[in-house]
Order: sequence, then structure tokens, then C-alpha cells
Amino acid sequence: MLAGRNVANLFFEDSTRTRCSFTLAARRLGADVIDLTSAGSSVSKGETIVDTALNLQAMGVDAFVVRCAAAGGAHLIAKSVKVPVINAGDGRHEHPTQGLLDVLTLRQSLGDLSGRTVGIVGDIVSSRVARSALFAITSLGGHVVLIGPPTLVPRSFERFDTSPGTVRVSHDLDAELPKLDAIMMLRVQFERSGGGGGGGGGGGAIISGDYREHYGLNQARLNRLPLHAPVLHPGPVNRGLELDSDVMDDPQRSLILPQVANGVAVRMAALRIMMANRA
Amino acid sequence: MLAGRNVANLFFEDSTRTRCSFTLAARRLGADVIDLTSAGSSVSKGETIVDTALNLQAMGVDAFVVRCAAAGGAHLIAKSVKVPVINAGDGRHEHPTQGLLDVLTLRQSLGDLSGRTVGIVGDIVSSRVARSALFAITSLGGHVVLIGPPTLVPRSFERFDTSPGTVRVSHDLDAELPKLDAIMMLRVQFERSGGGGGGGGGGGAIISGDYREHYGLNQARLNRLPLHAPVLHPGPVNRGLELDSDVMDDPQRSLILPQVANGVAVRMAALRIMMANRA
Amino acid sequence: MLAGRNVANLFFEDSTRTRCSFTLAARRLGADVIDLTSAGSSVSKGETIVDTALNLQAMGVDAFVVRCAAAGGAHLIAKSVKVPVINAGDGRHEHPTQGLLDVLTLRQSLGDLSGRTVGIVGDIVSSRVARSALFAITSLGGHVVLIGPPTLVPRSFERFDTSPGTVRVSHDLDAELPKLDAIMMLRVQFERSGGGGGGGGGGGAIISGDYREHYGLNQARLNRLPLHAPVLHPGPVNRGLELDSDVMDDPQRSLILPQVANGVAVRMAALRIMMANRA
Repeated sequence: MLAGRNVANLFFEDSTRTRCSFTLAARRLGADVIDLTSAGSSVSKGETIVDTALNLQAMGVDAFVVRCAAAGGAHLIAKSVKVPVINAGDGRHEHPTQGLLDVLTLRQSLGDLSGRTVGIVGDIVSSRVARSALFAITSLGGHVVLIGPPTLVPRSFERFDTSPGTVRVSHDLDAELPKLDAIMMLRVQFERSGGGGGGGGGGGAIISGDYREHYGLNQARLNRLPLHAPVLHPGPVNRGLELDSDVMDDPQRSLILPQVANGVAVRMAALRIMMANRA
Repeated sequence: MLAGRNVANLFFEDSTRTRCSFTLAARRLGADVIDLTSAGSSVSKGETIVDTALNLQAMGVDAFVVRCAAAGGAHLIAKSVKVPVINAGDGRHEHPTQGLLDVLTLRQSLGDLSGRTVGIVGDIVSSRVARSALFAITSLGGHVVLIGPPTLVPRSFERFDTSPGTVRVSHDLDAELPKLDAIMMLRVQFERSGGGGGGGGGGGAIISGDYREHYGLNQARLNRLPLHAPVLHPGPVNRGLELDSDVMDDPQRSLILPQVANGVAVRMAALRIMMANRA
Repeated sequence: MLAGRNVANLFFEDSTRTRCSFTLAARRLGADVIDLTSAGSSVSKGETIVDTALNLQAMGVDAFVVRCAAAGGAHLIAKSVKVPVINAGDGRHEHPTQGLLDVLTLRQSLGDLSGRTVGIVGDIVSSRVARSALFAITSLGGHVVLIGPPTLVPRSFERFDTSPGTVRVSHDLDAELPKLDAIMMLRVQFERSGGGGGGGGGGGAIISGDYREHYGLNQARLNRLPLHAPVLHPGPVNRGLELDSDVMDDPQRSLILPQVANGVAVRMAALRIMMANRA
């Protein structure tokens, strides 16, 4: 479908997992992929990311997949180039194909999401995954409970409800467990809590033992979750921190690897929809 | 045309831009591309670059594209292997496909270059781009004025004239502007002025504010350039230093993105000419 | 033969040479290749290598080529995934395709290896190449003499003889030379002697001048080797240390580049045998 087309992975921030997923998706559609990472790119010589993209467009690149540390990075590029741009994660802002693969996975498990309640647990403040999942789930009629300590899940997140009452904040995982139709555990992002700072509490406040005690998903907590409720996680998982190994590897409850497989399908769909009518 | 052939990008020095351009060129001809960068290569284990190339040739690589920090690096490899080698930039020495894309772009804009005068402005001493452009332009009958401060543009460069009077040195950009048929701004290479040293004055002498005042191309200077004279730059551009943003983005005068597009075409031609008769 | 199949190079340790060889092999069979190196991978975020492999399998990867610093790494992955895994070097343990290319090269030169004696010279303790070559040669009926200083070649290696007397240890290269049918020089691995430590003597004990005097292969020693005996080396070579340049470049005796060419053929065979019946 995309034979002879060139997709550029513009990854200003490392992410093997997402980059591979997009690469495999593009190749399955027949496209060629070219990888650019910040190390060794012109950006390290002070070029703006928009100029880098304009140059690649001039060379004949037909679409961009952009990962960057700054919120709005992909949008900035999209305003300047004429070819499709897919946001593969921009800072703490959004990660739309992750949100799409999350709802695809949830629908495969639960069917229609109307009136269903999904708990998202962890460092909500820093998580682009949480934002994109929240928008995708509530768009399909679902409800979201954002769960974590007050520093990581401020009340202000309730403003993201598109219709009243669809988004709630809770600091008590154990109280929420019996009410959930699905639970999405977020990664504790040590690599960001160091560098980030700035906007909000951030991961810096996390003390591993405490976090695990109050917000880690172990077998005991899994037992208090309704039997039909699956466990999701965007990966990579810190085994034994936010998620215990036996829960992660439970073939009846864990949808973590199906999420990964769905990621390729969702990215194929996104590339096809955005690129096909420009052949 | 080159289906089933393997092109190896041997980049001992980083350059995403040039590497992507060669990759896209090779793929459009049907070739496969394999990337080797110095990080992680056998060269980092002390192997000579010639031994690295001989090994890749033994594996079935059909052509090399070589970027390295040492003048003569590509030539050294070409003397040892039996397959074509394209110099993609060797230290301060040459960058031949850049010279070819420069004259292609100039000819598209000006037609025949005989008797035309092209100003090249900047750190001529350190610039392989300037050398290759100079050779290409004068080979086609054009004249070149090398412009910049005495530390970066020594008189000795006038020895590069192939026929008397075709190459001049000037330290006064404003005096030259009205006489030019095209102007090529060079990048101020902060990344080299630090490491280089050694041969010549080098970029270490550059003080940004001063440089911009005397040699930066702004709107006022653009107005003193003849109307038919286009602006070129090999990229990546330091916006607001050697080139102001409004000049760079002027669709009537700036040929910077057409240069990039021509780069792919020129590299396809080079790969085809060098590889086709060896099928 | 492998069109539409995806091979993932999972290289947790750098090796351009081996990675390129597998990449070219896979592509010649029509497969696509995806490269993952430890820098920038999820492993750098604390994910286990097994989880990384499980994720890639979920994305549709059809085979893994694994290089890692830990002995048993490829085996660990192979126990968890359902697709073929090829060990491309695991610490000091094994490098099976290197052993296969070594015996292929030896057989092209010597014919049947039964009763033939191959000397392997160097840091045997740290060498996965030596182990895999030893197993391959003795499996085909050949004999192996492991040669080097006592710190790098302990007597205990004689326990690797599959039938009595097929594996000997010697500390006297000059005494062994006239008895050898082939000699395989190992690389002095400066990059490991620093980091390794732990198990055995290790390269740390090597003093370059001494090593070269007693165990370097120079022209004088080559003259004492039987005329029919070829010289092998897994590369990259430290010219002038374990191997003198004139010996390495001797077209009559050195099989180093034929080894490299055979490496691609052997890896094509391995990929085909392991992947073909799973189409």
C-alpha cells in the first residue's frame, strides 16, 4: 500500500520500543523507513527540529514519526511541513497511538466501553500515556479514575472531563479496585524524575518501597479487582515495583503483550489513513 | 537499477543530513543500505578504516560512502578496495557531491555559469564545502570570490585558480555584494573550532557578534545583492548568525531547500555512474 | 526464501562486524532486519532482556540474533520466546556461527579435518571464539592445541576434549609451529581486559611487548609453519601485535578475508535452517 514511500522516524528522545513498532508497521505496508536520532543529528549542531524536518521533506520523506522531549514538538513540525506527522510522544503531553492501542485492547477485552470505568495508576502528572488514554477512553464513553499519591495525581486533573463526572481523582487504590472494569498501571519513570523538575510534583517524590506498598499491583490486589477486569501497562515494566511479576505474567489477566501487538496494528492504520490519500 | 546491491555508509564522523541523502538516493535506485558509524564499530577497537572497508567488501558490500574527519580518508580506502568509493566529506579537504549539488542548483537558477561570479562567505580555511564548490564552479567557467575575515580567508587561497583571475579573496562583504551573481553562505562551525586547532586560523577566532555584523547575510545586505542573485547555504544553518531567518525563508531568493532536493538527485547520479557498469 | 520475515539484531554489546554480517545474510534471503542496540533501548530503562525480546516477538519479529556480554544471554531469551534465536556471542562463552565459519574456511583449505591439528593462539580464557572453534573442529575429528601464556591458557582447558587427546594446552608457540596444519590467532582484547576481571586470569596480565615476542605471528614464525598451513584470525586484527602486517596480508597464507566472506554464507545457512520451516 505504501510501496516506494519513505517514513522518517525522527526520534529526538530514545525509545526503541516505539521506534521498532512504527518501523515494523511501516514496512508491513511496504514503506521504507529512515531512522534519525538526536545523537549525531543536525539538531546536535544547533539546527531547529523544524529545519531538520524541512530538509528531510526536501529529500523526499513522505511522513514523519516524531518523538521529542518537548510538549508540542510534533505539532510544531506539522505546522511547517506538507506531509503527515505522527506524534510518537511529546514530553508530558500526549502519545496518541498509545491511547489508540489502549482502547483497542480494552475493547477486545470488554467490548463497548460506554459506562465502563478504567483506573490509571501512577505518575499521572508526568505521563503522556495517561493523558492520551484518558482522552481515548472518555471519547468512547468510558470513565477514568486517576489513582496515585497527591504529588503525582493532583485534583486539577478532573478538569479533563469532557462530560461531567467522567474523570475522577483518587489517592486510594485499595478503595477503587472493586469498582474498576480495567486497570492500567503506569511505569515509575526513574529516568524522568531525575531530569524533569519544573511542572508539578514529578517522580522525584517517589520512594520505591512506599510507592510499591500503596500503589503497586500485587496478587492480593489483583484478587480484589473484578474477575473480568484486565491489567494493562504501556511498558517497559519495572517488575516488582509498580507491577509484580506474577501479575504481569498472568495469562488470564495481563494484556501487556496484546497491547504491544495491537500497537503495530494501530500504527499501520494511522500510517495508512494519513498517507494513503497522498500517493 | 541497483536492485540487490549493497551500499555501505561508512560514517566515521556524524552527519545525519548527508547520510540520509545518500540512503534515500541509494534506495531510490533499488539498492540496500547498511549504516556504520564510528561509535560501536571495529574502528573503536583499534582497527584501521582500510581493514574495516576490506572486511565489508569481503561480506559483499558493493560500494562505500565515506565520511571521516581525516583529509584523504576516502582516498585511502579507495586505493585498497575494488568497489566504488564516494567521498562524503573528508576533514577540511573535500565534499564532492556537495560541490556537484551546488553547481546543479546554480545552473538551474542562472543557466550557464561562464563568466558568472559566486561569492562564498565564511570560514573558508576549515570548509571542505568551499573547496569542492570552488573546483566545481571554476570547472564550469565561473569565477569565485572567497569572502571572510583574514584569519578565515587567507590570501593563499588564490592559488586555487585554475585559470588566472578566476579565484579572488576579499575581506569586505559589503563591497563585493553588488558584483555577485550568487552568494553561498557557509556555516559557522562551532563544533569544529573547538576540536580542530592545527592547520590555519580556524573557527576559534570567531566571535559571534562581530562575525554577524561584518559577514552575516541580513535583509539589508540582501537588498544590495543583484535581484537575480540567489542565496545558497550547505546547511545546517545557524539562524541569526551567518544568515538571518527572513533571508533564509525568502522563497524568491533562498535556494537552500532546492539544494537539499538536488543533493539526492546528484547522489543518485553518482551512485549510478559508479556502480552501474559493475553489475 | 525469507521474504516478509523480520530478523531483529538484539545487540546488547557493540559489534559492527558481526551485526553487518548477519544483516547482509538476512537481506540476501529476502528478510527485513531491525537493529536494537543497548544504547537507547528499553534495557537502559531497566527492562530485562527477556522482556525486551517478548515485546519484539509480540510486534511480529520472526527471529532474534543476540549478542550480549553475559554468558547464557541468548539461551535465556531462547527459553522464553517461540521464534528462533541465534547466539551471536555471549560473553566469554560461545560464538557458534564464528566456529562454523572457521571450520568451513579450514575445510576449504585442508579438506577433511580428521586427524588435522589446529593451533589456537592467544587469550583462550576470555575467548568465546576459541571455545566455539574448539567444539566445531573436534566435532569434525580434528585436534586442537591451545597456545598462550599460563595466565591466559590454563591446563584446565584440556577437559574440553570430547575424545581423549584431541585437546592439548601448550605455552610454547615456537615448539608447536612445525606440528600444526593451521593456526588461528586470537585478538588481544584490550577492551575486555579493562572491564572483565572476575573469572580467570584475563587480558589484564598482557604486556604488549612481551606478548608479541612470545606469541605474535611474524614472518619468521610463519616460515616455521608447514607450507600447507593457513593463518586465520576472527578479526578485528591488532596489526603488529598478535599478527604482523606482512603475514596478515600474505595472499598465499592468510584466510582472514575468506573467513569474513564465509561468515555471511554460514549465517545465511543458519537463518534459513532455523526459520524456513516456520514460514
